[in-house]
Amino acid sequence: MIRTHVSISLDGFTTFADGLPAWDAMPTFGPGSHGTDQLADCDAVLMGRTTFDQGFEHWVNDWPYKGKPVYVLTSRPPLRDDAADFDVSAAEGGPAEVAQRLRDRDGHLLGGANTIQAFLEAGAIDRLGIVVLPVRLERGIPLFDTEPTAFSSEAWAAADLESPTVPHRLRLESHRTFPDGAVELVYAP
Amino acid sequence: MIRTHVSISLDGFTTFADGLPAWDAMPTFGPGSHGTDQLADCDAVLMGRTTFDQGFEHWVNDWPYKGKPVYVLTSRPPLRDDAADFDVSAAEGGPAEVAQRLRDRDGHLLGGANTIQAFLEAGAIDRLGIVVLPVRLERGIPLFDTEPTAFSSEAWAAADLESPTVPHRLRLESHRTFPDGAVELVYAP
Repeated sequence: MIRTHVSISLDGFTTFADGLPAWDAMPTFGPGSHGTDQLADCDAVLMGRTTFDQGFEHWVNDWPYKGKPVYVLTSRPPLRDDAADFDVSAAEGGPAEVAQRLRDRDGHLLGGANTIQAFLEAGAIDRLGIVVLPVRLERGIPLFDTEPTAFSSEAWAAADLESPTVPHRLRLESHRTFPDGAVELVYAP
Repeated sequence: MIRTHVSISLDGFTTFADGLPAWDAMPTFGPGSHGTDQLADCDAVLMGRTTFDQGFEHWVNDWPYKGKPVYVLTSRPPLRDDAADFDVSAAEGGPAEVAQRLRDRDGHLLGGANTIQAFLEAGAIDRLGIVVLPVRLERGIPLFDTEPTAFSSEAWAAADLESPTVPHRLRLESHRTFPDGAVELVYAP
């Protein structure tokens, strides 16, 4: 079982343009807030290489994943030399391989966006948890990999009004709101 | 008081790539469903020119806005000749002028994305109601006008970790879920 619990601005960004997590838009965000305490219950932590390289210096003095193996998805090992001291290892097999390895355990996929997209594409996310923050950031790294289009009279004239093709349907599993107006939505993709 | 009640896919699209509303992704969508019955309570209906031109042929045989003035935001009047028969008129003054005109009444802004963006920019939306549909469309017209960025080591190195600038904060006014997993979120921008 692989789950995420990522923040997203109302306009779709999971980080600011400089890479800072969208969480940091909320003055009310802190350790364990907004459901991030659920990370304590998981068996393993997964993240992408960029998130790892970005987060390590921040985490190293008070390691937040104590007692849990951390798998870093990467196609360019090795990780830094001291990674093993924190039970961090490189996972080169990609989302499907990691999902298989964690089949009977609870893996928490931290991010970032590219890694979540790769897991979604591989059908390797069991619970897509997103926390919609009551902010618009206007710029940043989008959570989802999409292709925006503009209105076109030609496309509209050719539209199939009866049975549009929906690439992905999800099931809403649960939801809750936080006092600051953040809304957690958990989907089964 | 100007309010919206628009659908948005989980990945941010308010229409399919061919212009069909995201609502149509839901087999459960129909007249009055998903809170669209609240349109009956408004005093006036607002929409952009593209939405009007696109919707007219669909609406004309069973006009859904009977008894309500319809204002079409446009910089290129006139509208079609028979528009006046349905109490439809061109509003050339832009979002601020329309908001002023409707100050003591309840205006429902139907869309589309460009018009909602223009109203947001003008600070002319009092209640931003969006219904998050449990689908990913991957392509389409985004509700919000944004600028996606990619991760950059240089930007991250220069990031202000203490006080990120948040362009727009909103207040969550209400929320509800529908049986098919759609979630209505109403914000005061």
